[in-house]
Amino acid sequence: MPKAVAGPEIERLIQLLAKLPGLGPRSARRAALHLIKKREQLMTPLTEALGTARDRITVCGICGNIDSQNPCTVCTDPKRDSSVIVVVADVADLWALERANAVNARYHVLGGTLSPLDGIGPQDLSIDALVSRAHEPAVKEVILALNATVDGQTTAHYITDLLHNANVTVTRLAHGVPVGGELDYLDEGTLSAAIRQRTPI
Amino acid sequence: MPKAVAGPEIERLIQLLAKLPGLGPRSARRAALHLIKKREQLMTPLTEALGTARDRITVCGICGNIDSQNPCTVCTDPKRDSSVIVVVADVADLWALERANAVNARYHVLGGTLSPLDGIGPQDLSIDALVSRAHEPAVKEVILALNATVDGQTTAHYITDLLHNANVTVTRLAHGVPVGGELDYLDEGTLSAAIRQRTPI
Repeated sequence: MPKAVAGPEIERLIQLLAKLPGLGPRSARRAALHLIKKREQLMTPLTEALGTARDRITVCGICGNIDSQNPCTVCTDPKRDSSVIVVVADVADLWALERANAVNARYHVLGGTLSPLDGIGPQDLSIDALVSRAHEPAVKEVILALNATVDGQTTAHYITDLLHNANVTVTRLAHGVPVGGELDYLDEGTLSAAIRQRTPI
Repeated sequence: MPKAVAGPEIERLIQLLAKLPGLGPRSARRAALHLIKKREQLMTPLTEALGTARDRITVCGICGNIDSQNPCTVCTDPKRDSSVIVVVADVADLWALERANAVNARYHVLGGTLSPLDGIGPQDLSIDALVSRAHEPAVKEVILALNATVDGQTTAHYITDLLHNANVTVTRLAHGVPVGGELDYLDEGTLSAAIRQRTPI
């Protein structure tokens, strides 16, 4: 147990910063020092931004997105195609698709993927809500934008089965060579998929 | 410019988190999501810890340490040897020495090292205050705990010259093999220094 040098306030700040993903004990200490040195430029604004976010951020009751309004900005956007629901495991995936400007539709955040090893079953995910959304007459297509991992694909299969009776087309993301990717570094599964799903030029 | 998906509150939080050392835009986004998901366990305590630190943390008028009291915990600790001043470039170095329990003395934080290339001269560092502290009768030794870099060693020489008239012994950290280090991976300068400064077993 090292001696407390800097007082309990800083020690507590370091401990909490170290709980952020990507920051260990060492970088949390650097971050705390940086904050203290940049009190006006960074510490005060960050304190206020955290407080505002804490007070205003909520989960969208329709799609599970995180926003300061409920229903969220995406669900209330009239310019989006409401006939397509993009199913993602996590809000981070929703953000990634939005950053890429990949699709102009509504989303549905499952809150994870099925994972028997971790004890995550269908009741732990927002699957019932998805099924009832998919049965709305306006919805024509459900895009399963799930990770190309075992858990992601298991979840995709499970949802596809559940949506069998709904009047929707269920699609999934294409497999293939990442844009900018070099063939030499790709695994065999990706290369096979890229050949199978080749497209005419 | 990606569409704002999550509302301005989250975007602002991400922007500010990305300014922390060790967090880039991507990890700031992950950190923001983590905070939002762990609102009670992490976001609320972190907001409060930041606010407390912002309001209470101050710079010690004697040594330049950061603490919630002025003079700081180290300077007011009666159990410390007040005849020794350990000179460090940055508060992070002070913390590192304290974590190591390396020395039970007072400190002096320079606020950087001399660096002509970066335009950092003696007037930018807390050198005058150090010289006047070194002239106090109680002070017998000044340990220059500066980085073994060109800038650190330049600063050490500069301070040594200035302390010529003070009635103190000026010392510097030993060079040598890091504890746990393998000779095979060490540079020649370190190995030569370790041989020159060899100690009897």
